[in-house]
Amino acid sequence: MKIEYQSIGIVHSPFTKRKGTPIQPSRSKAVGTVEVFSEYAEGLNDLDGFSHIILLCHLHQSTTYRLKIVPFLDTELRGLFATRAPNRPNPIGLSVVRLAGVEGNILTVEGLDLLDGTPVLDIKPYVGEFDGQPDFRFGWLETARRQTDAADDRFT
Amino acid sequence: MKIEYQSIGIVHSPFTKRKGTPIQPSRSKAVGTVEVFSEYAEGLNDLDGFSHIILLCHLHQSTTYRLKIVPFLDTELRGLFATRAPNRPNPIGLSVVRLAGVEGNILTVEGLDLLDGTPVLDIKPYVGEFDGQPDFRFGWLETARRQTDAADDRFT
Repeated sequence: MKIEYQSIGIVHSPFTKRKGTPIQPSRSKAVGTVEVFSEYAEGLNDLDGFSHIILLCHLHQSTTYRLKIVPFLDTELRGLFATRAPNRPNPIGLSVVRLAGVEGNILTVEGLDLLDGTPVLDIKPYVGEFDGQPDFRFGWLETARRQTDAADDRFT
Repeated sequence: MKIEYQSIGIVHSPFTKRKGTPIQPSRSKAVGTVEVFSEYAEGLNDLDGFSHIILLCHLHQSTTYRLKIVPFLDTELRGLFATRAPNRPNPIGLSVVRLAGVEGNILTVEGLDLLDGTPVLDIKPYVGEFDGQPDFRFGWLETARRQTDAADDRFT
């Protein structure tokens, strides 16, 4: 089944290449903006009441993938769907970022792990009841063999 | 910018119509399966170590949207991107579900809020450090004016 989407906005970020870009919002202090295209701006009403939002983005530099990869935080091959690697069959990035401000169609966000120019597919409010989980088993990451906050160029 | 994806699997769920389907995994006890197409099965390695997974799905019955809607848990019009309503410009559903088992290309999951036959776009491991947030402000949901666990037919 083929599915076609259109970007609703674009990320403005200090990061222009993968190497050195934070691997997750939780490991980033970077501030940037999400420019929502004006035709969608009305949908941003009420968003400013939320401390965090979820950005679903098209990771546009991911044009290929392998089903087993060595993730940034490990030294062993892992199944792709057990990792957060960017190169996926459908390269959708999920970033939970802090919402620092809303002005018209511009969202200021903290904790960016996205490249400049990344197309935005959807914006959702982060809701602890829906999205927070006890996380009582987290697989290979429980004993992550490598520590880093930033990407290298393995998925370039 | 047009973006084209292909489903990597399909949801098998007890829910066949929107009305009565749980509005979120946190309000569902339903068990079902995710059938990952065999060509992607190798990517499921190591996933069984995680207690929860994130399903990103194409909400295939959502073919239209409005930028202001009355969400299930409120009685007032809210900006669409400040809600989790299914009818969105790019109708991508984000469901954090409990992973009860993995057998080959079949995942058994608990807490389904998805319709039978929903196409799956991506599967990610849920990681508390990445995905859990303190949620210290959650907007209109802090004083949700309506309580329900199940959808009605407002977005049909």
